[in-house]
Amino acid sequence: MRAYDLIWKKREGRELTTAEIDFLVSGFVNGVIPDYQMSAWCMAVFFQGMSFDECAALTLAMADSGETIDLSGVKGVKVDKHSTGGVGDKTSLVLLPLVAAAGVSVAKMSGRGLGHTGGTIDKLESIPGFKTSLDRTEFLDQVARVGIGLIGQTKTLVPADKKLYALRDLTATVESLPLIASSIVSKKLAAGADAVVLDVKFGAGAFMQKYQDAVDLARIMVEIGSRAGRRFKAVLSDMDQPLGLAIGNSLEVAEAIATLKGEGPQDLTNLCLTLGGLMLQLAGLSETFESGKEKVSNALTSGAGLAKFKELIEAQGGDSGVIDNPGLLPTASEIQVIKAPTDGWVERIQCRDLGLAAMELGAGRNRLEDLIKPEVGLKLHAKVGDYLEKGQTLVEIHAQHKADAEKVLPKVLGCFNFSRQAVERPVLIKIII
Amino acid sequence: MRAYDLIWKKREGRELTTAEIDFLVSGFVNGVIPDYQMSAWCMAVFFQGMSFDECAALTLAMADSGETIDLSGVKGVKVDKHSTGGVGDKTSLVLLPLVAAAGVSVAKMSGRGLGHTGGTIDKLESIPGFKTSLDRTEFLDQVARVGIGLIGQTKTLVPADKKLYALRDLTATVESLPLIASSIVSKKLAAGADAVVLDVKFGAGAFMQKYQDAVDLARIMVEIGSRAGRRFKAVLSDMDQPLGLAIGNSLEVAEAIATLKGEGPQDLTNLCLTLGGLMLQLAGLSETFESGKEKVSNALTSGAGLAKFKELIEAQGGDSGVIDNPGLLPTASEIQVIKAPTDGWVERIQCRDLGLAAMELGAGRNRLEDLIKPEVGLKLHAKVGDYLEKGQTLVEIHAQHKADAEKVLPKVLGCFNFSRQAVERPVLIKIII
Repeated sequence: MRAYDLIWKKREGRELTTAEIDFLVSGFVNGVIPDYQMSAWCMAVFFQGMSFDECAALTLAMADSGETIDLSGVKGVKVDKHSTGGVGDKTSLVLLPLVAAAGVSVAKMSGRGLGHTGGTIDKLESIPGFKTSLDRTEFLDQVARVGIGLIGQTKTLVPADKKLYALRDLTATVESLPLIASSIVSKKLAAGADAVVLDVKFGAGAFMQKYQDAVDLARIMVEIGSRAGRRFKAVLSDMDQPLGLAIGNSLEVAEAIATLKGEGPQDLTNLCLTLGGLMLQLAGLSETFESGKEKVSNALTSGAGLAKFKELIEAQGGDSGVIDNPGLLPTASEIQVIKAPTDGWVERIQCRDLGLAAMELGAGRNRLEDLIKPEVGLKLHAKVGDYLEKGQTLVEIHAQHKADAEKVLPKVLGCFNFSRQAVERPVLIKIII
Repeated sequence: MRAYDLIWKKREGRELTTAEIDFLVSGFVNGVIPDYQMSAWCMAVFFQGMSFDECAALTLAMADSGETIDLSGVKGVKVDKHSTGGVGDKTSLVLLPLVAAAGVSVAKMSGRGLGHTGGTIDKLESIPGFKTSLDRTEFLDQVARVGIGLIGQTKTLVPADKKLYALRDLTATVESLPLIASSIVSKKLAAGADAVVLDVKFGAGAFMQKYQDAVDLARIMVEIGSRAGRRFKAVLSDMDQPLGLAIGNSLEVAEAIATLKGEGPQDLTNLCLTLGGLMLQLAGLSETFESGKEKVSNALTSGAGLAKFKELIEAQGGDSGVIDNPGLLPTASEIQVIKAPTDGWVERIQCRDLGLAAMELGAGRNRLEDLIKPEVGLKLHAKVGDYLEKGQTLVEIHAQHKADAEKVLPKVLGCFNFSRQAVERPVLIKIII
């Protein structure tokens, strides 16, 4: 077998066999197949796509390329959750304590933020003392004891995906649905999940801007998961405006705590209940999605979810005082308030630009090696469909310095469009696949 | 400027500016842009193509990437000739002495053979003593003195093309018309040509199997040439069967000598007169193509072309005795004759397979480092449209050893199809562009 022929075959739109894909992946990881052949192959995949069989083969080959996590010691069906990423997406912070409280064992590895989107691990690290790197035994012990553990991804997991993603990132071959799907699913398989609920986001603030692309991506992932003997479900959720009202690490943790207290934004709350319902169903703890959702809802209203979050923080060395006093979270010294420039309904929020403005303040990374400032970010006071009178608070800028705030202020203001006519509130969840 | 953005731009089907293409080529040659980005870009070009402007920019950037040859000391309009390569293509050996005899200064760099096609330099080297590497001064002196010089390509010419071609060859991105066109034309520009006649071949024995691809390639090259301020003309010639009757280095030199004596195969003779007529026209030595062709025809019938070939051989240290006695060329010790298995007309000759069989005998190279055996090859006794009776000689196999001949014999025989009905002789030259 020669890499050349496999590039040629894909270029001509033909289907590669599982053996051929295994050869590519192992050769690439071992350094036998050079980067320049792999990048040409990725570009051919960009144009020609991949069949479900090819995609499943690639996923399994990548999942098996390094260490895999054995969760067989953890009781019950292991249900993981994955979001394709968005602006203000603090879902995991709310959802995972809720489902853990409802009986799902949560042993989750999460990522860090990059570009306009944030990452769960960065958010958790804004809680003073919270450790996100535990060794394998500590982690599994904690899951067995507390029912929940949340750590960063280890470096030894799916090396093929790490190497391939880095290459795609430099060669304009990231935006290929089958490559995105296999990247995501391979990590979930290697992390030991029996079942996975996917939150696939679409719209201006998501990686998939077009709804149809997001639907296609979700379908591919569900199909690959099934071919790998796992159960996947996907929720398609709107990322044309930020999720909730907070963007930035501390601010999002505070919003997550408020949500676990039943005082969170409606869109975030609803999304967590929906994803939670699916997780309980997949875990076999509820017969139906509806009954699962009700259990999660009970965990919210009873305060069991909040209590579980407190347990999680304590188990991982964090200061659980933040639950009762969010003021213990890092706080920005400079808060600038932007007021509504006119009476009217918020018609549009440029979600991606808002994410980038938060990143510029220091809430996110431009490059992987950048340092995060946990206390900075944006706090919205209105979402699409809300009415504001001129002079009412539209958004707060939380910054380290006055100059930082002033620098992003025009950009932030420019992200909001107003209408004189009433604007309908968009539906967050489009479909469940 | 970032290579990433230029890959992305091409991937999206947008047009790169000249500055962007210069950045890519110089960065690639200097090693600043890694192979893996360049190969992804080439694959994007494979799918999205290039505009004439992009193609001309790439060609000029590559032509300027290394040494260029200054032919200003050579008198007259410098007209070069290029063939896209085929089986049995000894055109240059006949054509160049003819046009030199008719007054065109010929300072030509030629290539070596690879795969099923041969190369002019390998053929010339089968003449005992013939030197194909002269230093610059020797070469130009000879052209001034004799009117003709023929040497191998220097390593310092178009390094960008060498590096890019090697990469394309490993990444299944050779078969892109704009990349092929810029590769060819960049070498002609760097070699100092004012005008170029292209022999673009199509059919089973050519690199371009499809006629339309060959036409498109010819059009791109003529257009790029014109944008670079040069005059290009292209002849589209059929390579569905070998050109002439001989395949193999010695055998082809002998056939070229016979042709210069007016005793060569008709297809080869016609092609040389046509290409020669165009060269004389481009050189400004004839008003029209027809009058140019007549002059070349005169150089053939008068023996002036043959005399010029003799001068060329002597100038480059070869044994010009081969002109009167082709037996002085290396001769195979083993000649096996394949006879027509049936009465009938030759309907088809599998041209590429015949070229590969000759290569297997040692007439060509599988890899660039392979050594050529000058004496081996195939000598056809019939072409498409010829009638043979069962038992008449169809083809001779010239081999180093009996075992070699016997090994290829079934393949060679299998290359010929016969028909009970009369078969028309194909037209060699389709169009002139």
